[in-house]
Amino acid sequence: MPQTYDYIKDGAAIYRKSFATIRGEARLDGFSTEEARVVVRMIHACGMVELAPQVVFTPDAAKAGRAALLAGKPILCDAKMVAHGITRARLPADNEIICTLDDPRVPELARRIGNTRSAAALDLWGERLDGAVVAIGNAPTALFHLLELIDAGAPRPALVIGMAVGFVGAAESKEALAAYPGLESVIVHGRLGGSAMTVAAINALASEQE
Amino acid sequence: MPQTYDYIKDGAAIYRKSFATIRGEARLDGFSTEEARVVVRMIHACGMVELAPQVVFTPDAAKAGRAALLAGKPILCDAKMVAHGITRARLPADNEIICTLDDPRVPELARRIGNTRSAAALDLWGERLDGAVVAIGNAPTALFHLLELIDAGAPRPALVIGMAVGFVGAAESKEALAAYPGLESVIVHGRLGGSAMTVAAINALASEQE
Repeated sequence: MPQTYDYIKDGAAIYRKSFATIRGEARLDGFSTEEARVVVRMIHACGMVELAPQVVFTPDAAKAGRAALLAGKPILCDAKMVAHGITRARLPADNEIICTLDDPRVPELARRIGNTRSAAALDLWGERLDGAVVAIGNAPTALFHLLELIDAGAPRPALVIGMAVGFVGAAESKEALAAYPGLESVIVHGRLGGSAMTVAAINALASEQE
Repeated sequence: MPQTYDYIKDGAAIYRKSFATIRGEARLDGFSTEEARVVVRMIHACGMVELAPQVVFTPDAAKAGRAALLAGKPILCDAKMVAHGITRARLPADNEIICTLDDPRVPELARRIGNTRSAAALDLWGERLDGAVVAIGNAPTALFHLLELIDAGAPRPALVIGMAVGFVGAAESKEALAAYPGLESVIVHGRLGGSAMTVAAINALASEQE
């Protein structure tokens, strides 16, 4: 006789139960309603309610990110997994999702500036940075280089999602973002980060629908 | 004067330092050399050395996965982020990477079988399951449904990467995989999982190059 498993098979019910579990377990009392929605989705993506205390918003970050998306600004991503994970149907203005990592000019650019390809790819963002949502979900070098570009006069994004991950430069690059004057940001401090929670943050900002 | 940041900009040096940090901090002594390579990459992808004790391999899992890739078998993924994250240049036989989630037949299939789209998408894998590497990096329903399909006579994959994530069914679906007789698997037990560590496991199996 075939094995059967007893599990919830309705997508909407799964979401409801997941979000209820997260809201029951995670410490969300320091966040605004809008911020909490973002954090809940991020926790949903990684399975860790312990993430909450590591997430820090500047005061207008959620509002600025939402406004930029509503205004049709692009989403600039450091990693292809981030670009591919965003749920296009949730975006309010059919916003462009841009990842320049595979651009054929990137390897030569990286050699020229003496940095990683992830960092060099940002040199191709140009004027599209202006008022955009920037999502750094992988490479600390990309986040450091973003700050260098802005410092050198590149246009300012509306929001920087700083969720570089890992053991070399991740924590430091996010501290540098937090210390940079006048940038709105959502940051996961420390080593944690990655494409899944970055995508979750964008998907949450994109639509108020849970 | 422009701000400058002191950080490592050489990709290979970043990998080396990351992997050395992980090997210095993570408890890897229960793993074979080949398994440890996989776990190190998974930790690298999520920033958590605490992941190690939650990763469980069946005795021949790493070998079977590597052999399937060398033999040119496809990689079947439940999620697009997994499919897009795999480094194609590391694959030993230009292996096909398949994700059927966007197939236009999936919504109707999901209604018919009364399950999620993530689960229904697996009904389109058919004979390609035979000897394949299956990567479940997102949906518990997909992992449960995989076991149901195999139980109903579908061909057996060479390896199941069981890294469904989250709060509803994730832990249970991975326990069901572990309990299923005769399937080779790499499992992250509990709520943790996700596309990043799933991709990292495949990238590690795909090439011995660190």
